[in-house]
Amino acid sequence: MTITAETLDRSRGLVAPALRQAVERLDPFTRLVVSYHLGWSDEHGRPTEANPGKSLRPALALLAAEAVTGVPEPGLPGAVAVELVHNFSLLHDDLMDRDTERRHRRTVWAVWGDATAVLAGDALLSLAHEVLTESESPYRQAAGQAVAIATRELIRGQVLDLAFEQRNDVTLDECLEMAAGKTGALLGVSAAIGAILAGAPQAVVAGLSRFGAELGMAFQLVDDLLGIWGSPVVTGKPVFADLVARKKTLPVTWSLDHGGEAGRELAAWLRRDGGLTEDELRYAAQLIERAGGRDWATQEARDRIGLAEHALDQAGLDDVVRNRLGQVARFVIERQS
Amino acid sequence: MTITAETLDRSRGLVAPALRQAVERLDPFTRLVVSYHLGWSDEHGRPTEANPGKSLRPALALLAAEAVTGVPEPGLPGAVAVELVHNFSLLHDDLMDRDTERRHRRTVWAVWGDATAVLAGDALLSLAHEVLTESESPYRQAAGQAVAIATRELIRGQVLDLAFEQRNDVTLDECLEMAAGKTGALLGVSAAIGAILAGAPQAVVAGLSRFGAELGMAFQLVDDLLGIWGSPVVTGKPVFADLVARKKTLPVTWSLDHGGEAGRELAAWLRRDGGLTEDELRYAAQLIERAGGRDWATQEARDRIGLAEHALDQAGLDDVVRNRLGQVARFVIERQS
Repeated sequence: MTITAETLDRSRGLVAPALRQAVERLDPFTRLVVSYHLGWSDEHGRPTEANPGKSLRPALALLAAEAVTGVPEPGLPGAVAVELVHNFSLLHDDLMDRDTERRHRRTVWAVWGDATAVLAGDALLSLAHEVLTESESPYRQAAGQAVAIATRELIRGQVLDLAFEQRNDVTLDECLEMAAGKTGALLGVSAAIGAILAGAPQAVVAGLSRFGAELGMAFQLVDDLLGIWGSPVVTGKPVFADLVARKKTLPVTWSLDHGGEAGRELAAWLRRDGGLTEDELRYAAQLIERAGGRDWATQEARDRIGLAEHALDQAGLDDVVRNRLGQVARFVIERQS
Repeated sequence: MTITAETLDRSRGLVAPALRQAVERLDPFTRLVVSYHLGWSDEHGRPTEANPGKSLRPALALLAAEAVTGVPEPGLPGAVAVELVHNFSLLHDDLMDRDTERRHRRTVWAVWGDATAVLAGDALLSLAHEVLTESESPYRQAAGQAVAIATRELIRGQVLDLAFEQRNDVTLDECLEMAAGKTGALLGVSAAIGAILAGAPQAVVAGLSRFGAELGMAFQLVDDLLGIWGSPVVTGKPVFADLVARKKTLPVTWSLDHGGEAGRELAAWLRRDGGLTEDELRYAAQLIERAGGRDWATQEARDRIGLAEHALDQAGLDDVVRNRLGQVARFVIERQS
């Protein structure tokens, strides 16, 4: 087991009981829905051993608390809160994007309908704040504020994402801004909240927040690469999922902006109507590759990790924890799902 | 102008600038959607003089703060927060219930689609907590916790409401429990939050909370009566709206449980498929009246107001404010929309 796998495992071990305790408070039906969504049970409530997700956000929250206090526990309410907000956004995004599968299972709206997905997401967003108000940290108010601001950014990102679907002239800058909202904001607060709750100096909080935000951009770039070239067996999503949906992801937008002839061919491909065969999807993926979008996104993800590590160095953390955070960052760009 | 109209007006005057300031932070599109929903602008962003709603919840929050401190201002962040949570729930409920009209205007999902209604609601729920974390009250954490718990109850109520649509055997007790969640919980916290933020003793907070919860039940009963017998011109909803949707409202459920022959006829009517003429709807309304459901709901609303006033008397408030709260309570059962 790598150090990062160990870090993520340890984090899941600490966070799972607190997360379950929070979810226990929901009404029985919403609890069932959330247990299913989180991979704890099947849709009838029978316990399962499903893939519980990466738990990247809670791991960051605990590591930041550890960086400040030497132990992860002060970050626990923050870890639970960011995991709840993350899952609130997954429940609502899957509904809005009409994605039918996540982590090899049907999404909540696909199983129970739209209203249930709306309500389960609402319940998790509210629960995140409930958990934070119960924290014994004297800094819980700043933590709640940071989560609320990140949620506002998250929503702004999703609003842009949906608006971009109606447009053919989305620029790379707009697309990067959208990713900063959709992915960067919550990873930023995830990396900072453990330090906030532990009462760390502002410079440490700011450094960790920048680290998380850059890591989030890298995360999104890798997600976009996996959405085109990832193995469906590993990702749990259909093959070429983002191309089927004609999503203006970062590698696609870069290719349209900077991809020359192949980029123009890609633009024409995106404007075509109707269903798509696997051959046509493979052709589009090749166009993005020829345009340079795949190489650009790969390099940009590495550069963002570099910026993330730089922010980390500036935060003045203890070496052991600093290195673990660095390893988590590298895990993000090496992951296959 | 009655004292209650004055109270509600004064409350709107105090709350509106703070509410606008909060909404200003949202991304431009969500800001437009929320401004439309709140009656501040039309769907193109042009300012309007639309009916801004009753603002009952913020008025309660301010009166409670006044009861404790002599001035309403300490309740302001609470007033804004409960109004935001209320509007979050309207946005999502209109979507889930597929209601196309509210306050004489098309609902947000009907204008912009489902995703926009989901995101605008999400934004307001998060904003409610953002506003509370910024309060300068040393009791803001207790206020945030109370709002989060009420939101959980609100969601539980909506979950029950949707589940009841699939069932023909909903009891009056279940229906009352649903109303306690959907309407009682948020009115309970609305009446208490001003006192919480002002640092009132627990007995005062508990009395105000009970007052609000009973007021909420009366409010729901009156809402259900207006949903059947209200004037569409005044309510802004289609005629017999709740009967068209075959909603198991409180007067309907009472009639099914206790309405004898007319109740059994009503049960048969509710099981019928297909579209409904205005004559058929009028017939159903008459059945509920013959079954005694209209009289029961009218009397039950009065009884709940009695319980609310009793809770108020136990809270030991200053006479002037206590009387204003009592007048707001009576306004709730005398209203026509």
